[in-house]
Amino acid sequence: MSRTVVIAGVGPGLGASVARRFVDEGCRVALFARSESYIDDLAEELNDDDGDNGGEALAVPTDLADPESIESGFETVREAFGPVDVLVNHASGGSWKGLLELSLEEFERALDVSARGAFLCSQEAVGDMLDGDGGTVIFTGATSAVRGRGGALAFSSAKFAARGMAQSMARELGPRGIHVAHVVIDGGILPPTREVESPEKYLDPDAITDSYWHLVEQDESAWTLELDLRPHVEEF
Amino acid sequence: MSRTVVIAGVGPGLGASVARRFVDEGCRVALFARSESYIDDLAEELNDDDGDNGGEALAVPTDLADPESIESGFETVREAFGPVDVLVNHASGGSWKGLLELSLEEFERALDVSARGAFLCSQEAVGDMLDGDGGTVIFTGATSAVRGRGGALAFSSAKFAARGMAQSMARELGPRGIHVAHVVIDGGILPPTREVESPEKYLDPDAITDSYWHLVEQDESAWTLELDLRPHVEEF
Amino acid sequence: MSRTVVIAGVGPGLGASVARRFVDEGCRVALFARSESYIDDLAEELNDDDGDNGGEALAVPTDLADPESIESGFETVREAFGPVDVLVNHASGGSWKGLLELSLEEFERALDVSARGAFLCSQEAVGDMLDGDGGTVIFTGATSAVRGRGGALAFSSAKFAARGMAQSMARELGPRGIHVAHVVIDGGILPPTREVESPEKYLDPDAITDSYWHLVEQDESAWTLELDLRPHVEEF
Amino acid sequence: MSRTVVIAGVGPGLGASVARRFVDEGCRVALFARSESYIDDLAEELNDDDGDNGGEALAVPTDLADPESIESGFETVREAFGPVDVLVNHASGGSWKGLLELSLEEFERALDVSARGAFLCSQEAVGDMLDGDGGTVIFTGATSAVRGRGGALAFSSAKFAARGMAQSMARELGPRGIHVAHVVIDGGILPPTREVESPEKYLDPDAITDSYWHLVEQDESAWTLELDLRPHVEEF
Repeated sequence: MSRTVVIAGVGPGLGASVARRFVDEGCRVALFARSESYIDDLAEELNDDDGDNGGEALAVPTDLADPESIESGFETVREAFGPVDVLVNHASGGSWKGLLELSLEEFERALDVSARGAFLCSQEAVGDMLDGDGGTVIFTGATSAVRGRGGALAFSSAKFAARGMAQSMARELGPRGIHVAHVVIDGGILPPTREVESPEKYLDPDAITDSYWHLVEQDESAWTLELDLRPHVEEF
Repeated sequence: MSRTVVIAGVGPGLGASVARRFVDEGCRVALFARSESYIDDLAEELNDDDGDNGGEALAVPTDLADPESIESGFETVREAFGPVDVLVNHASGGSWKGLLELSLEEFERALDVSARGAFLCSQEAVGDMLDGDGGTVIFTGATSAVRGRGGALAFSSAKFAARGMAQSMARELGPRGIHVAHVVIDGGILPPTREVESPEKYLDPDAITDSYWHLVEQDESAWTLELDLRPHVEEF
Repeated sequence: MSRTVVIAGVGPGLGASVARRFVDEGCRVALFARSESYIDDLAEELNDDDGDNGGEALAVPTDLADPESIESGFETVREAFGPVDVLVNHASGGSWKGLLELSLEEFERALDVSARGAFLCSQEAVGDMLDGDGGTVIFTGATSAVRGRGGALAFSSAKFAARGMAQSMARELGPRGIHVAHVVIDGGILPPTREVESPEKYLDPDAITDSYWHLVEQDESAWTLELDLRPHVEEF
Repeated sequence: MSRTVVIAGVGPGLGASVARRFVDEGCRVALFARSESYIDDLAEELNDDDGDNGGEALAVPTDLADPESIESGFETVREAFGPVDVLVNHASGGSWKGLLELSLEEFERALDVSARGAFLCSQEAVGDMLDGDGGTVIFTGATSAVRGRGGALAFSSAKFAARGMAQSMARELGPRGIHVAHVVIDGGILPPTREVESPEKYLDPDAITDSYWHLVEQDESAWTLELDLRPHVEEF
């Protein structure tokens, strides 16, 4: 089975790793991000690498804070790849500021990207899935989705909002054949472009991606709503 | 000590009960709601009832989805009562709809009232508290703030967002003398205006209010971030 | 209403504070502990202090790790004070050791006191409450009851066991008029007998006790199953 | 890499499925259970089926409520297969009774098997793992490990105790190269020996086992402490 996948929010870390793995598994993967040049390059790289498993990538410049941009992004995907089978809600905004330093605009940006953007992408994708054979929606969460972090008000609030959405969707849509999962990433992700001093303290994006793929492949008789992931040395 | 209190979102159920109790305890209570006629009547009733403990009420027509209305509401409170000591973030929007029936406007309304409104009210109130002797911020939460409910996507998402905000604020502001608490109301609140068949299945708003007042009165050496409240017969 | 109270596990910190407050509120309070001399002195002190509100204290030497001792302790209480209305499951054993250093005896001691002891005390007390007008069972929990602590295996396991018991009992017994509550104490309790450097970093036992009494007094239309308590400066 | 695995508590449902899969993956799997005849037959069946991947099974009659039996069980495993790499704490006792119907013996049996037995097995297995190249400990949990169930006091208490243990061990042992995971099984497991009316309402044990194997294979840079599993139609 070759799946059509939307990764909503692709940057050089985890998003790129998920895209690479899903293409390797034979998926047609649409890369959503504001930064057109980055996803163009990534799509080209992934399409060059592919074997003959049918996997391919498509750059779809999209502003996840803009409802119209999301709508037209999904139109582009459907025209190129057909209806969506898998959605990864991966974007998050949110400057790490406390209550008093945070501006209204910063608060709104965080909620618009992490919550409203995820809502609109889910609405688009799930519509396709219900017309088809079901599908999978994965939310990339964070520790701040389960424990509000002091000094990161908008990030905490937005990540909680997405988790509440995921739980609501899981209960609504599970019986209709759609697997909704929320992954709590607990720790820093290994930066792709610079050396770090103690790499064992970071999550390797390819290792995270193993669990994303496992979620996609789970049998519907034993679906996971939530799992956490952290480096083995993480204090928590 | 006579406290200045803002109840952000006053209706005839729990909001009115909190207002009445806080006035009885000698607080100066500002009633925020869009519906001017309701809070005018309530303020009049509370001011007629008051003893000589200094408690009084003020109707402050405010749209919690509108940042400017919130700002001018707090100005009105400060002019009438001085700086704010206690804030109750009590409003919530959110039609109970699932993913596909929910409109963009309904989603935004829920987040604007429950999350953005609470953020802006907190910013206003906490600014006053930090200039003074600290204070208390109480969030009225719901079961859907801890377990996303199928078919109530916007409500779940917005209630989660407010809980994440409360947890972030508690960690940021506790050391600065501000008590942030989140109350999980698990069950229906006894309706004020109509008979119900089995009243024991509902939370009595005056009983809820006992716990709100307890939170205000807690000593800073033993503050509660979260407590749940439910009728003794509730299944959960 | 004058209540008969059993505090299962009384030491000089929180247990003594709860006992003092409950006697002040007019309760007849039975003090359970292994150390006979300590509870004898405390009972004498509480009985000397009492006003004419009917409150009194009784020392009942009891080993909470010993089923027969628990049974005879409750017999003593019933003879002196009549059936039990309130139980505080307050004891906890548990050396703070990791997996490999912990002996079988240490593990068993922790579970016997915190879990089995609480089970047996609850069985005794709830039997009385169901024959009467209901009642209240409060469990003194800890952060390690909600997040297992590395290096404190037996303590974490035993505290989790007690919390699971409290949740099961709340669901079973709430509809029958018995309020079961679990209090998560997050932080160190101010030591009664020695000076500490930064007292604001500790929970004042009398402040904790305010919330215990609030739980006893809650109306059955709005009962709390769980609340947390921590000093305002606590990092968490 | 060929791993030595102990499955502590093997019955015809999930335990047998885990054993079969792990043998298929080339593991040497020791089957612990009181019922000698069942595990003898299962071991024979698994050994007949095996290909040439090195996987094999060994029946080790063991009473998980008996510390000496556990110790000698691990001796048998080490003699046959060498030091242990993976432990699955799978046993649980616990009659589903409420507070007043439960006997002391039933309570103790539940705690002895689920908590003390898991502690002793973990102590044995982790000693081996620390001498070697690390390893994995998986706890089979249940919904009652995260929400105490009314009328199932001993089961809830014992399952909570095991979860607290798992969390404590994860924090202690993760940095030392040992992956501790707790799986929340939410729903009934498809019975192996009888027809059921709506099989889609049950978890297929082989589907559960996919996630167990995924946990064993996770890279140490992205380990899961907890995941839940439920049938897609489950209400929760």
